[in-house]
Amino acid sequence: MPERQRADARRNYTRILAVAEEEVAAHGAGASLEQIARTAGVGSATVRRHFPTRHALLEAVSRQRIEALCVRAHDLTGKGDSRSALLEWLSDVVAYCVSARGLAAALSYDGAGSDPVHENACSAALEEAGKPLLRRAVREGAVATGVTVADLITLVVGIALATEHHPDPAARADRLFRLAVAGLSPQS
Amino acid sequence: MPERQRADARRNYTRILAVAEEEVAAHGAGASLEQIARTAGVGSATVRRHFPTRHALLEAVSRQRIEALCVRAHDLTGKGDSRSALLEWLSDVVAYCVSARGLAAALSYDGAGSDPVHENACSAALEEAGKPLLRRAVREGAVATGVTVADLITLVVGIALATEHHPDPAARADRLFRLAVAGLSPQS
Repeated sequence: MPERQRADARRNYTRILAVAEEEVAAHGAGASLEQIARTAGVGSATVRRHFPTRHALLEAVSRQRIEALCVRAHDLTGKGDSRSALLEWLSDVVAYCVSARGLAAALSYDGAGSDPVHENACSAALEEAGKPLLRRAVREGAVATGVTVADLITLVVGIALATEHHPDPAARADRLFRLAVAGLSPQS
Repeated sequence: MPERQRADARRNYTRILAVAEEEVAAHGAGASLEQIARTAGVGSATVRRHFPTRHALLEAVSRQRIEALCVRAHDLTGKGDSRSALLEWLSDVVAYCVSARGLAAALSYDGAGSDPVHENACSAALEEAGKPLLRRAVREGAVATGVTVADLITLVVGIALATEHHPDPAARADRLFRLAVAGLSPQS
């Protein structure tokens, strides 16, 4: 493939993925592939060439979102108050987990079988990314020692699972996340 | 049925249910019905007469455990420190939810279909039972105003769901429950 065509292909791939991310965020894992192609300004055949199955597209969307969360953790690590930085990141993880429920189910049930390798790679990447944020917050005395990133992510995943059938899962999950972070006692 | 026979039947029912509760706690929803009959000192036919299906037996066990949690809430409401009383009860709810995962799955997937009416009745009963405990803790300033029993139970259910595949779900759930109750900040 000549250099020019390769550059076009890369641009298409990036554009399809960006559009797919928005469509999945808006309409869940069942987002229309035709709509994605139209909005990205490419033909359905081009979408299929880059992502032969819906599963492949959803997996790429999910990987992209995890990567964005990792970059976000890195950006926040040096910034402002360590507790706020950690909470801001965790709050993004909550939002991702809530919207990813449809994604996760689709990746498991669309006929391609569940993909524990992909899932484990995702949580391992998030755990690594969150460590410096948590370490700083613990060092500054803003978070109790002994708390691990795995604890926090498991709690966030649990909140996402338990609020899945609520009429407004995002708002409900956010409320419970704030409750868990603040604890039961009144704040002075 | 003469009075004497009715009394025997009631005694058998109670005994089978008590044994079933222990067996399900120890071996999950797949607990052996033959073993339950043996330990209860009755024949398999007697078990089947009281509980025609495994589903009926599991539902009775689950209802019994919910009732016990409601009684427990009532007993704790007047007792000791209001925060400790609430936490003791919630900790029992955590333990129930962790062990009930197998129960819940069996009630949904054993061929009798899921039973949302039963499940909703359970959470409504728990919510009612927890209200006086929470009210007292809020009144005494031990728990932030605005927290609801539904918040607490949703959090507990989430923790149970997220720790389901852990090698030691009970210990893991208990750790996360304590973290959520204390919040992220170090305790003074």
